[in-house]
Amino acid sequence: MELLKNHRSIRKFKTTSIPEKTIEDIMQCTARTSTTGNMQLYSVIMTTEPPLKEKLWESHFKQNMVKEAPAVFTFCADFNRFNLWCNQRNAKPGYDNYLSFFTAAIDALIAAQNFCIAAESHGLGICYLGTTTYMAQKIIDTLNIPHGVVPVTTIIAGYPDETPEQEDRLPVSGILHKETYQNYSAQTIDEIYKNKESLEKTKTLLEENQKETLAQIFTDNRYKKDDNMLFSKLFLDVIVKQGFMNNDMPTNNQ
Amino acid sequence: MELLKNHRSIRKFKTTSIPEKTIEDIMQCTARTSTTGNMQLYSVIMTTEPPLKEKLWESHFKQNMVKEAPAVFTFCADFNRFNLWCNQRNAKPGYDNYLSFFTAAIDALIAAQNFCIAAESHGLGICYLGTTTYMAQKIIDTLNIPHGVVPVTTIIAGYPDETPEQEDRLPVSGILHKETYQNYSAQTIDEIYKNKESLEKTKTLLEENQKETLAQIFTDNRYKKDDNMLFSKLFLDVIVKQGFMNNDMPTNNQ
Repeated sequence: MELLKNHRSIRKFKTTSIPEKTIEDIMQCTARTSTTGNMQLYSVIMTTEPPLKEKLWESHFKQNMVKEAPAVFTFCADFNRFNLWCNQRNAKPGYDNYLSFFTAAIDALIAAQNFCIAAESHGLGICYLGTTTYMAQKIIDTLNIPHGVVPVTTIIAGYPDETPEQEDRLPVSGILHKETYQNYSAQTIDEIYKNKESLEKTKTLLEENQKETLAQIFTDNRYKKDDNMLFSKLFLDVIVKQGFMNNDMPTNNQ
Repeated sequence: MELLKNHRSIRKFKTTSIPEKTIEDIMQCTARTSTTGNMQLYSVIMTTEPPLKEKLWESHFKQNMVKEAPAVFTFCADFNRFNLWCNQRNAKPGYDNYLSFFTAAIDALIAAQNFCIAAESHGLGICYLGTTTYMAQKIIDTLNIPHGVVPVTTIIAGYPDETPEQEDRLPVSGILHKETYQNYSAQTIDEIYKNKESLEKTKTLLEENQKETLAQIFTDNRYKKDDNMLFSKLFLDVIVKQGFMNNDMPTNNQ
């Protein structure tokens, strides 16, 4: 519990590499994660060689922590292994569709979080890379990822070389709903975001970016509509190309 | 570490309800989960009232454990809260697209796993319900889930009333790839699945289902192509309807 409560993302690492025994133990914990029908529809690719890490660093928007971390773990939704098994066992896999992709993505993502907790138990620091879905095709090319497999998140890990302050969080009342979804009134929204907006670092951000509100820093600088539209198309194309859209497309009548 | 290694899904629960203080503590741990840009794009809906649980039980293919568990936690990808905040702060959200849905789904899923570990630390047992994505529209109706929110997984929790054997898992060598993805040879597939196929319960399953291989039980009975095709269409329709497909669709040229 204390470990979960003390979580901080780590972005500066010592050069020390992670011992093989530690990796094995972390992976034993990861492997215990619940998965759909115990199918374990995920793979973890551990990359430590500098030339490969350099290519991954390029995919992950050249964030230096990717090069500096001793190991980069790419978590993939993986139906390839299961399909190979089915084909070798006289069984006809029917997993070339969107539901199967999303099912495997769930397996990969909850396994990723178990991996993080196991890593932190070993004194390692971790950071998730959200850029994985943005640049999935480039990562696929770098890591020789075959048909039936899609990278969905990446975790960098190593021994921490910083002790950052804990990030703020929304109050639990803002994320937990009792019985059914309780939609937010304007007043509730004000209350939920009040602490985040009043932080000293928020004031600094607003000055630096010449913005009126913290929300504008997200919409105008960090997570912009045009980028989201582009990366939506690219990621959907990857899902198709990796073999997960052999189903009727939805009617896009928005 | 031991907690992670000892994980078993629990499907039989005592009638004891979960104390509010325990829920609060579990949610405090959940809230510490890493999320994209610290946006916390997820919501948790805790349902305990029998009439609502009965409706959820119907959605989850009438698995009795859903009615019997004292609490059902529906984890949702949630951009509604963030969009409301943006709109109240003179910021124009650009999150009505597939990338934004997937980003919020990642947040919800890794938070779900932190929730499970915190729950297990409190002596609770948990089980994931994969049926959430199959029946998302019905769950949306039952729980009054608004536009901008999509349920992605469900966890039932309560005090265990069984001590099941641990499920088998594939060897770590079967899910971990060194440096790049190492595709599987026929021989490797045989080795990875050997233990699973040789279990006593597998033999029983084959006899009961009159099947030649375990893989056939997955493809012909448990996760069938026709079901997957139908649920793919339904889940994509939900993603559209909840407001996450205002982007170019991929070219489906498989």
